[in-house]
Amino acid sequence: MEQPFAKPPYVIGIAGGTGSGKTTFSRELVATLMTNKIVYLSHDSYYRDLSNLPFSERVKVNFDHPDALETELLIKHIAALRNGESIDVPIYNFVEHTRSKETEHIEPQPVILVEGILIFAVKELRDLMDMKIFVDTDADIRFMRRLLRDIEERGRSVNSVCDQYINVVRPMHEAFVEPSKRYADIIVPRGGRNHAALDMVAAKIHSHMGS
Amino acid sequence: MEQPFAKPPYVIGIAGGTGSGKTTFSRELVATLMTNKIVYLSHDSYYRDLSNLPFSERVKVNFDHPDALETELLIKHIAALRNGESIDVPIYNFVEHTRSKETEHIEPQPVILVEGILIFAVKELRDLMDMKIFVDTDADIRFMRRLLRDIEERGRSVNSVCDQYINVVRPMHEAFVEPSKRYADIIVPRGGRNHAALDMVAAKIHSHMGS
Repeated sequence: MEQPFAKPPYVIGIAGGTGSGKTTFSRELVATLMTNKIVYLSHDSYYRDLSNLPFSERVKVNFDHPDALETELLIKHIAALRNGESIDVPIYNFVEHTRSKETEHIEPQPVILVEGILIFAVKELRDLMDMKIFVDTDADIRFMRRLLRDIEERGRSVNSVCDQYINVVRPMHEAFVEPSKRYADIIVPRGGRNHAALDMVAAKIHSHMGS
Repeated sequence: MEQPFAKPPYVIGIAGGTGSGKTTFSRELVATLMTNKIVYLSHDSYYRDLSNLPFSERVKVNFDHPDALETELLIKHIAALRNGESIDVPIYNFVEHTRSKETEHIEPQPVILVEGILIFAVKELRDLMDMKIFVDTDADIRFMRRLLRDIEERGRSVNSVCDQYINVVRPMHEAFVEPSKRYADIIVPRGGRNHAALDMVAAKIHSHMGS
């Protein structure tokens, strides 16, 4: 087992509800760091393969529940990266709800960024993180962003977005995402373009990387 | 007007409700920074002098309302420090509710830390800050800490602490402190001994100081 780094990789978790701006924050952070010595892992890549179910059953799955994700594989992958080993990340097909035959081969790097709505909801995953950031945005703004995104990018109707939000997204948020906020080391208000917070997180990572 | 620093001083505001751990966080931050190039200003030092009122009137003042503080003087002082000028900070007598004839002479430093429950409630004060940190702790824990502290340090009875809390402290918190949280750049949960958050803030300040 190779150990190519002077110190173990630094693992940052970035969580937050749907539409909170956590993906924007994560991307801006990577841009701010101006380095390629970073692995970016999305929890979404680890959705369980549903090819064993008929399509009509797949779409009934609650994708906002922790059980929909193969978090045990993500945990294995982070542990491997920390050990200096490379990993093969699943490529998920969000239309078919299946995993592609291809995977993405990823080499270990000094910084690992993990992003997802539910990454603080599982203790074993949390325990692998050196820094836990929760991106927090008012619920009405989050809903509005999701509505506009689902209409524009997924061709959904207003009614179907509202139905799914009230019946699945919101109850799962209340049950799993919101309670996991208390495990965060810092909470970043106003979502993705909070530059003072970005600066602070970047400074900590730079100081860890010794640059 | 002298300008002794290569760049203007970096102003950090640390706010949070009573018992939130903001003072602990502030002190731990100063200890972590291991520098004396820092000015520590408490908003509490700027309580208005009530020597013009009979003592029986002084104790009726609402000390949790922004108007009880001479914030305009604190603003003037921060602006002066940013201009490289020294200041004379009032010394407040919390028993008599008056200002001492003495003041504390403070020279400008590269970092200025301002602490208080209401420092984000005034726009002109907020606008002077480069980094705004809100220390957030659940209300029951905050109340318990205040209760124990007021009994131990001020010899107060349980009933008098509860009366003041429900009639003054809590409504003022809801009206002024809690709404000011949204102006924070980061929110620090679990109060004063959150070391991951401390590290991050310290890294940003060190990077500003170029050390």
